[in-house]
Amino acid sequence: MQLSVIPIGDELLIGQVTDTNSGMIARMIAPWGWQVRQVLTVGDAPAEITRAIAEAFEVSDIVITTGGLGPTKDDLTKQVLCDIFGGTLVEDPSVTENIKALLSRRGIELNRLTAAQALVPTSCRVIQNLVGTAPIMWFERPDGKVLVAMPGVPFETETMLRDAVLPQLLERFHSDTAIAHAVVMVEGFTESALAETLEEWESALPPHLHLAYLPKPGLIRLRVDGTHTDPDFINSEVKRAAAEIKAIVGTHAVADTDIDAPAILLDRARRHGLLIATAESCTGGNIAHSLTLIPGASDVVAGGVVSYSNEVKTRLLGVPAETIAAHGAVSEEVVRLMAEGALRATGATIAVATSGIAGPGGGTPDKPVGTVWMAASLLTPDGPRTVARLGHFTGSRSRIIDTATTHALLLGIRLVDDTLGCEC
Amino acid sequence: MQLSVIPIGDELLIGQVTDTNSGMIARMIAPWGWQVRQVLTVGDAPAEITRAIAEAFEVSDIVITTGGLGPTKDDLTKQVLCDIFGGTLVEDPSVTENIKALLSRRGIELNRLTAAQALVPTSCRVIQNLVGTAPIMWFERPDGKVLVAMPGVPFETETMLRDAVLPQLLERFHSDTAIAHAVVMVEGFTESALAETLEEWESALPPHLHLAYLPKPGLIRLRVDGTHTDPDFINSEVKRAAAEIKAIVGTHAVADTDIDAPAILLDRARRHGLLIATAESCTGGNIAHSLTLIPGASDVVAGGVVSYSNEVKTRLLGVPAETIAAHGAVSEEVVRLMAEGALRATGATIAVATSGIAGPGGGTPDKPVGTVWMAASLLTPDGPRTVARLGHFTGSRSRIIDTATTHALLLGIRLVDDTLGCEC
Repeated sequence: MQLSVIPIGDELLIGQVTDTNSGMIARMIAPWGWQVRQVLTVGDAPAEITRAIAEAFEVSDIVITTGGLGPTKDDLTKQVLCDIFGGTLVEDPSVTENIKALLSRRGIELNRLTAAQALVPTSCRVIQNLVGTAPIMWFERPDGKVLVAMPGVPFETETMLRDAVLPQLLERFHSDTAIAHAVVMVEGFTESALAETLEEWESALPPHLHLAYLPKPGLIRLRVDGTHTDPDFINSEVKRAAAEIKAIVGTHAVADTDIDAPAILLDRARRHGLLIATAESCTGGNIAHSLTLIPGASDVVAGGVVSYSNEVKTRLLGVPAETIAAHGAVSEEVVRLMAEGALRATGATIAVATSGIAGPGGGTPDKPVGTVWMAASLLTPDGPRTVARLGHFTGSRSRIIDTATTHALLLGIRLVDDTLGCEC
Repeated sequence: MQLSVIPIGDELLIGQVTDTNSGMIARMIAPWGWQVRQVLTVGDAPAEITRAIAEAFEVSDIVITTGGLGPTKDDLTKQVLCDIFGGTLVEDPSVTENIKALLSRRGIELNRLTAAQALVPTSCRVIQNLVGTAPIMWFERPDGKVLVAMPGVPFETETMLRDAVLPQLLERFHSDTAIAHAVVMVEGFTESALAETLEEWESALPPHLHLAYLPKPGLIRLRVDGTHTDPDFINSEVKRAAAEIKAIVGTHAVADTDIDAPAILLDRARRHGLLIATAESCTGGNIAHSLTLIPGASDVVAGGVVSYSNEVKTRLLGVPAETIAAHGAVSEEVVRLMAEGALRATGATIAVATSGIAGPGGGTPDKPVGTVWMAASLLTPDGPRTVARLGHFTGSRSRIIDTATTHALLLGIRLVDDTLGCEC
């Protein structure tokens, strides 16, 4: 089944808000072999919304719209839906009740604009939004094609898709093709070098298997997709293909699930009973943030220090001011001491550290923007075992921070695997 | 001028990568009064790309495609462009030279797949990509409409749009309408309550002015857009409208430029010569990250502590273990001591702190998921002045972290404004 998604909102087109709903929808429907065929993002303009819906129905049996339903621009999208599917806007008392109950839990009174959200086209079936005030509207065309109008707030879209809309869509539509996926996360290759390495193997793949490259800074995800009528056959086929990839790339394979470097380090910490700390200069808290964004991180993350100023490096991480003066803050000596200092300061057993120049200012001929020293330190019975490496990263400040974050975490993962072993 | 943007790539449709290029393009063209009319995201499928380009040209004179040009899937998009605009794929020696120069700076050798990137349709004019290996291709239709095929790596797209593609598009197309914008950032309102407050004023707006609501967690951006033939007139009109909004919402207006809470706090710190520190439990480094993501942050950010474990709260921030035992880590007492401890530990003069339950686990009946204590502490001649507030936030872990980040920063901004004055 191939869906079309129509994110609606001027805020998307002017670049104030990034649409993350369409990606979330794609990830949530993937396990059923469903795919997003196209994403048509339009503004809060009736003619554009009407045209996008018509185009979407040309190629898809299911269309999901997100957004265009906030209290200040509600009428517009709903009137468009009335014009397309017929009916008129009338108040649905069950929606009014739902909004009142929701607002009272938040200690807010119902005002007139929010009350207007209970107006819905008579041509739709309402699915109550249990986490927001905008009702979800399910429309059916005479030919059986379905449009579901969902709110645009990502948390509401995700919750209601998972809990209500997707189960109802799966019941209404269903597929016979069995789908299977396997993932291998590879580090230490450029995309084109990896493609050359795998080219011969890839060209011999049978037609029921397909290989996709999904590069991220510092990591490449290889995904094997299989489709077949026999679920057991295709499951074993994608597993076999993933095992062959791992045999070819060897130790460059760092994980066989579709997770990012922060999740891999959390996994290694849980497996070996380690406690994680961070000591961040140029990454400014992003390593800690990327780790703690993952539910359950508190079991294995002690905390960390953002040592932006040299004073903080000395005060909290114990890096001697003389060492900083002698080698500079962006140096192997300092970043090693930062990682070891983070272990001491927090009581953790594995630490990663960064010190570099994220730019756009601050570069020198010796240490241009993008120069980042990274270290990882693992507490062993013989004391801390510390490794460091130098990266030269390119791109914007944000990209350099993201790339340094991934590489520092990979350095920690590699140190754990080399010291304590890895069954991945 | 209204552009259509076509992001190309299976990775976008399966939700592995989020398209940020279309928003970046919208923001970059806005100062010239140009807009993105629609975004058509399609996979690496010739028929879909062909259809999207045809649809885009129906409503736009300028079409920008992003992506579909990596070394592993290059031929496909280029062949589609050949089919549409004519010509054949031939090697462009200037592109080969550019790729070789770029790779040699990175210390990488040219391999066969990268070399294939120098094949371009004879029907296009090449714009050299100075920051990546995929060439930019400019196509013109007989009717004067233009398609520019750009790489998909956000840093490359942004750099080359700014430095080469946009200047050339502006020269080729131009507009006579004068455009002006003004922004007021408002805190402490829900979107619908603010809309009610402004409703009478908004309904009296002249036709050349338009008000847009752009809510973010904890902040609402109000943007006044004006269009007119007289640039001076429309500039003064949007300024007048913004001043009227500020008069209506009073102290709820926290900034008059389109910046987020982190940038507002950096601005306040610069204005008053303050040095910023963070002490984060549930936000896990996100406050520090959001501050240090902004270029030049190092001037006013000392650093911070991610005190995920109670041990780190005690060791690095000096929060007595007895206080944590008596009140719990998520308490007003602890979060106040965290903020004050951050000042002492780092030598900063303004600190923000959080301690809460980001979920999905860890909630209790007393302190459910979303309970977050926030504090801000400002060093004054009489010692630290500390304020705290309790938030009950809803949504996913990531949303709770983001909302707590914004609210903690706003608490710091408000403390600075209340104590030291504000001319915003």
